[in-house]
Amino acid sequence: MRRFSDVMASFISQRQFAIEWGHCDPAGIVFNSRFFEFFDWGTWTLFEAALGVPPPDLPVAFGIIGIPLVDVSARFIVPARFGDAVELISQIGEFRRSSFDIDHRLLVRGELAVEGRETRVWAVRDAADPSTIRAQPIPSEVIARFQMP
Amino acid sequence: MRRFSDVMASFISQRQFAIEWGHCDPAGIVFNSRFFEFFDWGTWTLFEAALGVPPPDLPVAFGIIGIPLVDVSARFIVPARFGDAVELISQIGEFRRSSFDIDHRLLVRGELAVEGRETRVWAVRDAADPSTIRAQPIPSEVIARFQMP
Amino acid sequence: MRRFSDVMASFISQRQFAIEWGHCDPAGIVFNSRFFEFFDWGTWTLFEAALGVPPPDLPVAFGIIGIPLVDVSARFIVPARFGDAVELISQIGEFRRSSFDIDHRLLVRGELAVEGRETRVWAVRDAADPSTIRAQPIPSEVIARFQMP
Amino acid sequence: MRRFSDVMASFISQRQFAIEWGHCDPAGIVFNSRFFEFFDWGTWTLFEAALGVPPPDLPVAFGIIGIPLVDVSARFIVPARFGDAVELISQIGEFRRSSFDIDHRLLVRGELAVEGRETRVWAVRDAADPSTIRAQPIPSEVIARFQMP
Repeated sequence: MRRFSDVMASFISQRQFAIEWGHCDPAGIVFNSRFFEFFDWGTWTLFEAALGVPPPDLPVAFGIIGIPLVDVSARFIVPARFGDAVELISQIGEFRRSSFDIDHRLLVRGELAVEGRETRVWAVRDAADPSTIRAQPIPSEVIARFQMP
Repeated sequence: MRRFSDVMASFISQRQFAIEWGHCDPAGIVFNSRFFEFFDWGTWTLFEAALGVPPPDLPVAFGIIGIPLVDVSARFIVPARFGDAVELISQIGEFRRSSFDIDHRLLVRGELAVEGRETRVWAVRDAADPSTIRAQPIPSEVIARFQMP
Repeated sequence: MRRFSDVMASFISQRQFAIEWGHCDPAGIVFNSRFFEFFDWGTWTLFEAALGVPPPDLPVAFGIIGIPLVDVSARFIVPARFGDAVELISQIGEFRRSSFDIDHRLLVRGELAVEGRETRVWAVRDAADPSTIRAQPIPSEVIARFQMP
Repeated sequence: MRRFSDVMASFISQRQFAIEWGHCDPAGIVFNSRFFEFFDWGTWTLFEAALGVPPPDLPVAFGIIGIPLVDVSARFIVPARFGDAVELISQIGEFRRSSFDIDHRLLVRGELAVEGRETRVWAVRDAADPSTIRAQPIPSEVIARFQMP
């Protein structure tokens, strides 16, 4: 399967932020569910950078209901603690016909601390049954916009 | 001002649950924002008990957009820790014309640990401008249903 | 590799709870990070059921620092919505030398909505360097207690 | 009672950030418990600015166990939505003998959206009973550092 990253330089979103007290658990490290919030932040930031559309306007701009998550995984390598300055790097792993992967890496002091992958779909409301949603092919112009200018 | 609790026995919602690892912060105690989640749980439980309507059906059943929170406060008396069995007791503090108070008490081993008060409004979509919401008088039959049968 | 589930009936933890308003996002469905909180609940419930030790006492009872998560994944099949009654079923997927998998299934109205797998390690404080933790072989009596009596 | 703000210009912490998808509830607005996370962020930022000590080092630098929250309130004036750029302004409301107030204002597009007040105590471990904590007078040099240089 063609991997998007093989054929062109793609947008990378980088966000710096600090680990907050409320992100951490009694072991003094970030509670695992928080990383999935961070991944979600990274995906929206990446899409805004590549598509030039504020995240809340994405549905109207592209005629979709959203980009719902269907699969996610994470590997925890080094703990992140209260006060740590972290960097979240997010980029497309692969575009497929109607789904795509976003790869996330969280660095603590330059060291890879967490890596994760989200799989999302390009979703529209079903015309025949508006109460359900279904995946739809990702427009080629959307994919093209993830190339670096 | 007439206080609802002066004139009749009112519904009380009681929920028992355990404090989870992910509720707690590096001090080993529940992080404060979690209590406001718990209060929200208590309000919905109370409304379901009194009105006999599942919470997601409340808007349709009563022609409202919801019961948005406009004011909340909490006092933290005793810490709650991972594994603590807690009880959340929620009841109407007062019904006013279009707003009302819900009083919440969280007990840890029978001892009052947190007390809070939410103020919410009975809100409808504005007929003249559907993009905004406005408070509307609480129907007397709604207030009446909070009396114990 | 020997799979624990091949050789004996193992403890299963089952928790029923309702999806709360605050669990859900603007799409009206549970925000993905919440499922990882639920998985964590399931793991502690399972360990308490199997080991007969309240979760906060686990470190002292077994001479460990905890059972930190090193890897997790989830697949989202059916959305869960505000008010949905859900059931979380958690059980050991496999015990290895010093790590183990917990499989989680979340059912909405009896239908598989989310499935996930956590990989955790049996961790102790390093005697040579107390600031770090390391994996240690899981005692066979711990593994044995996950068998149904 | 002497109000700190009456007698000197005090440090103000200002943080800009965006409202994330995962902060919002099915009404499409920030779920109330999130604001208390934001207030906590603001307090740590303010203390770092005034005291020049990274938040995790505060206990060691000042011989305290922390600055636990004992009381908090918030008033919700204007909803904040996904994608909104917000500004959180935090400053000391008042220093008392061993407790103090932090006032928080959250602006959405320059408009006051939420205002809150946290009351915290300057807490040490009790020498006689290390399992408990107690309030202790706030050192005058700490209070002085909240004056603008």
